[in-house]
Amino acid sequence: MRLFDGGNKLELESGRQLGPIDVAYETFGTLNANRDNAVLICHALTGDAHVCGHYDPDQVKAKTTGGWWDLIVGPGKPIDTDKYFVICSNCLGGCMGTTGPGSIDPATGKPYGLSFPLITVRDMVDLQAHLLDHLGIDKLLAVVGGSLGGMQTLVWANRYPDRLACAIPIATTTRLSAQSIAFDAVGRNAILRDEHFQQGAYYDSGKSPAGGLAVARMIGHITYLSEEAMHAKFGRRLQHKPDYQYDFASEFSVETYLDYQGSRFVDRFDANTYLYFSKAMDYFDLAQPSGDLQTELARATCRFLVISYDSDWLFPASQSLEIVNTLVSNNQDVTYCNIDCPYGHDSFLLEDKIQGGLIRGFLDKTLERLTRSDANESDDADHSLSRTQPSGSIFAGERVDHRFIEDFIAPNSKVLDLGCGDGQLMRRLRRHKNITGMGITLSETDIIACAAAGVSVVQYDLDDSLARFDNDSYDTVMLSQTLQVVRRPEEVIRQMLRIGRQIVISFPNFAFWRLRLQIALRGRTPISAALPDAWYSKTSVNYLSVKDFEEFVREKLNARIVRKICLSSEKGKSIGLLQNLLADEAIFVLARK
Amino acid sequence: MRLFDGGNKLELESGRQLGPIDVAYETFGTLNANRDNAVLICHALTGDAHVCGHYDPDQVKAKTTGGWWDLIVGPGKPIDTDKYFVICSNCLGGCMGTTGPGSIDPATGKPYGLSFPLITVRDMVDLQAHLLDHLGIDKLLAVVGGSLGGMQTLVWANRYPDRLACAIPIATTTRLSAQSIAFDAVGRNAILRDEHFQQGAYYDSGKSPAGGLAVARMIGHITYLSEEAMHAKFGRRLQHKPDYQYDFASEFSVETYLDYQGSRFVDRFDANTYLYFSKAMDYFDLAQPSGDLQTELARATCRFLVISYDSDWLFPASQSLEIVNTLVSNNQDVTYCNIDCPYGHDSFLLEDKIQGGLIRGFLDKTLERLTRSDANESDDADHSLSRTQPSGSIFAGERVDHRFIEDFIAPNSKVLDLGCGDGQLMRRLRRHKNITGMGITLSETDIIACAAAGVSVVQYDLDDSLARFDNDSYDTVMLSQTLQVVRRPEEVIRQMLRIGRQIVISFPNFAFWRLRLQIALRGRTPISAALPDAWYSKTSVNYLSVKDFEEFVREKLNARIVRKICLSSEKGKSIGLLQNLLADEAIFVLARK
Repeated sequence: MRLFDGGNKLELESGRQLGPIDVAYETFGTLNANRDNAVLICHALTGDAHVCGHYDPDQVKAKTTGGWWDLIVGPGKPIDTDKYFVICSNCLGGCMGTTGPGSIDPATGKPYGLSFPLITVRDMVDLQAHLLDHLGIDKLLAVVGGSLGGMQTLVWANRYPDRLACAIPIATTTRLSAQSIAFDAVGRNAILRDEHFQQGAYYDSGKSPAGGLAVARMIGHITYLSEEAMHAKFGRRLQHKPDYQYDFASEFSVETYLDYQGSRFVDRFDANTYLYFSKAMDYFDLAQPSGDLQTELARATCRFLVISYDSDWLFPASQSLEIVNTLVSNNQDVTYCNIDCPYGHDSFLLEDKIQGGLIRGFLDKTLERLTRSDANESDDADHSLSRTQPSGSIFAGERVDHRFIEDFIAPNSKVLDLGCGDGQLMRRLRRHKNITGMGITLSETDIIACAAAGVSVVQYDLDDSLARFDNDSYDTVMLSQTLQVVRRPEEVIRQMLRIGRQIVISFPNFAFWRLRLQIALRGRTPISAALPDAWYSKTSVNYLSVKDFEEFVREKLNARIVRKICLSSEKGKSIGLLQNLLADEAIFVLARK
Repeated sequence: MRLFDGGNKLELESGRQLGPIDVAYETFGTLNANRDNAVLICHALTGDAHVCGHYDPDQVKAKTTGGWWDLIVGPGKPIDTDKYFVICSNCLGGCMGTTGPGSIDPATGKPYGLSFPLITVRDMVDLQAHLLDHLGIDKLLAVVGGSLGGMQTLVWANRYPDRLACAIPIATTTRLSAQSIAFDAVGRNAILRDEHFQQGAYYDSGKSPAGGLAVARMIGHITYLSEEAMHAKFGRRLQHKPDYQYDFASEFSVETYLDYQGSRFVDRFDANTYLYFSKAMDYFDLAQPSGDLQTELARATCRFLVISYDSDWLFPASQSLEIVNTLVSNNQDVTYCNIDCPYGHDSFLLEDKIQGGLIRGFLDKTLERLTRSDANESDDADHSLSRTQPSGSIFAGERVDHRFIEDFIAPNSKVLDLGCGDGQLMRRLRRHKNITGMGITLSETDIIACAAAGVSVVQYDLDDSLARFDNDSYDTVMLSQTLQVVRRPEEVIRQMLRIGRQIVISFPNFAFWRLRLQIALRGRTPISAALPDAWYSKTSVNYLSVKDFEEFVREKLNARIVRKICLSSEKGKSIGLLQNLLADEAIFVLARK
């Protein structure tokens, strides 16, 4: 459909104007009465509007083929078209229906070719915003996209903060690395040097820079797969003959696969669009125009779910982590998971178990928050509370320490839970104290559980991530039954004191009388309910007593002990006398002096 | 010089024959009277015979420009041309003087072009062997090479085992991964598709496939650098203008750098040689013809020094580790270091500190072994013995446990030292007991020290590497003051018992009376000379007493305690009574039941 005509042009980031502009888009599902269930999906370099093969049968441009993200989008899928109204449009500059370099320039009556203005990710997003205006959608529930689609998602959050409740950027980056620009540049070189490129004006010549485009696609394809995935798929297998042929024809399976990918791509994609899209990616830098990523991300008001894949070497996890770290530093609402999956950058198109679980829970809870005026979700009786033992748990039953910790938390305060497990304590505190805040854990399963429970959580390693949190950014920072497994306990506690107005730490007491007896009288390394593992098979690495901790606070920290609770987990109550002897667990509340 | 004429041809691996063949080579330094100081250096994809800029002034083909490996080769350099006779020749198929596709085919009087037979790494090595025959060198001290040169080095060890005393393959692999083949295939595609390629017969046309070759070189160049190195070198800097130009000219610094690399390369290199060399690399598979890498590596009789770079993603460390693991499994003599250096695959051309130290020590000791009939080196009084404290040391002075451990070692036996530090104990045992064997450590500095001391050592993580050692492959396996830091002690000890006929383990006794008192009476986590760190700042993770260990042996292992020594490190002697109370250190000798 035509969004801009000759008199009404789109202002581009480059300063040029473009019009008329047609936009090819598809929608799936139904917009609800509140008009708050719309999800915009942004496609990657070679995608199109057909995100999903299941869609509203009344849609005019109905296609019968499958969509490029059927794994995630459709009836009953994580982005459930029975529940959400899904919109996907071909990007500006594209070759799948939206105006691009292959479109007719009304000024000349010929295809634009290289006279088409260079476009940026911001231009793509601006055009999508106009499409939403046209559809009468003021605010989106979510913008979701991987790779180039993830860049669009980030720009949405930055440029139209009031128009989305959450953003889900996947396998993406705030800016390409030098290496990624280099790969793009080589691909463009192959196209630009092709004898049939004809300065981009090849459309009516009967020849196209197919060879160059194929080479560019091959390079791209290598970067989309992990080395591991390539090895599993092809190894060193020969395609047709059992032995080397000693000539220059393609003979390894990976060669013939690339040949096939290259030639198939040439049939469906326009070389000029490849040039324009790859250049748009190179130009993309979310930190602009201010030059400061923190400032730009701070414009966003939505919740974020950031997903990366650990085998992605094109946009590696470190680049997603930079987004997450900046959001954390800005005190913004973010959930993050780096998914362990072997398929490389393409994982977001191939993996649905973890990614799907995260997106489903996160979208559902975001919609729930929008539709309820009160912050308390309906999860009080949720069975998942008792389903999983939190990873730091030392007792079989209810966590005794949680009961006591709750007393230290002020109503409506902000809490950071280090080693949050599946969010059990955070949910308890949300129910009883109406807290906000987030958790930290390393477990994918825990992150899915937290997302489904509406607990924001990031996948951080405690030992090297706390520096990202701002001074005084939380009322309380908790470390519950996790001190014994951190590698650098002193540094972790110092960071906690910097981040939180108060900190709460619970740990097993190594000077519990049963433990003392074992070492003193029996000459054995102690074992107890709180420290159950033998020396040769344990996960705890730090052993400390109540006295050790008190001395540590006194000598190493500029902090005071606000409260001390020494617990007997057998009796399920606190101990008043001879605490270092009789308690098997301790809870300390500290604050800076 | 001409090595083969028309009547005397080289038999190629493909079954074809080639002749005449000219070889371009250079030599540096002087062959000694024993003719045992010759070092052959093999060049990589784009190298040549001019490995070093300093050379014998009598050499006819004297060049005044610097060599491609001046960092490592030259007077006083790690491969010291004042000491060694260095030979380097341009590879078969090359374009730097040795016969290749650009040479005149005597049958036609024209350049071969694609009628030149495909060559393999084996063919390159065979031609080098003929060159050595011509030079009258029967046996090399060493063959050294990185990347494609490393492949040649491996073939030397496999195919001419009697002709080299040591092999130093660097940043290389036994076979290309699917990903590396894919990159090569795309580069060849760019050349083969170039409009000026003319089926390889471009030499007399006045035009060459320069565009395709430049693209191939650009792709290669990206794979030679690490992402980190590219980021440091270029980042997202623009080359000429402060702002985006919104056209398709190269504007990022990394783009103009690649343009420059591509165009400079085209001036000095032949596109056909690029095709032939890249195909030779794709074909290379050391596991052939038997199909079994272990069998093929077992043909080698030389010592190995294997070096990889942790930032190399073209031939990653895992591929060097496969070589090392196979050599270890074969009980062959190998030293291995994965060097921490950010420059990617090209590190071997750019880094000399660690690499140079390793090569220097390793070559010197290899020559020393050749020239002395007795195995005892002259290092007894070596100052380096006392220079560095071994990393696992718990005492300030001499390691008391070493004195006792020596008693358990049979003369002329074979010893594996897990956590060997700088090789102090291995050298003591070699001097006093004439042992052979190897050490394991993680420290680069320790590996350099070991190489310089003639102690073979591999950079392994104890917790996941022992499975590579064969059953019963050592007389004694030692774990001296290292048990307390391994993550999976049970698994490590099980592996030790499988590998060694006896195993020796020493560790600090957690039930030492001073420690008992601290916990029992003071309620504090104990600190002692053997366990000196506070709970919040320690490296030890396993605490065990003599009794704990005895019970562990009884209940978890199918082993018997052959000897037990309980030491008082204060008194520097063993304890007979109340050992678990009075000893602060224990040494156990175990054997399978």
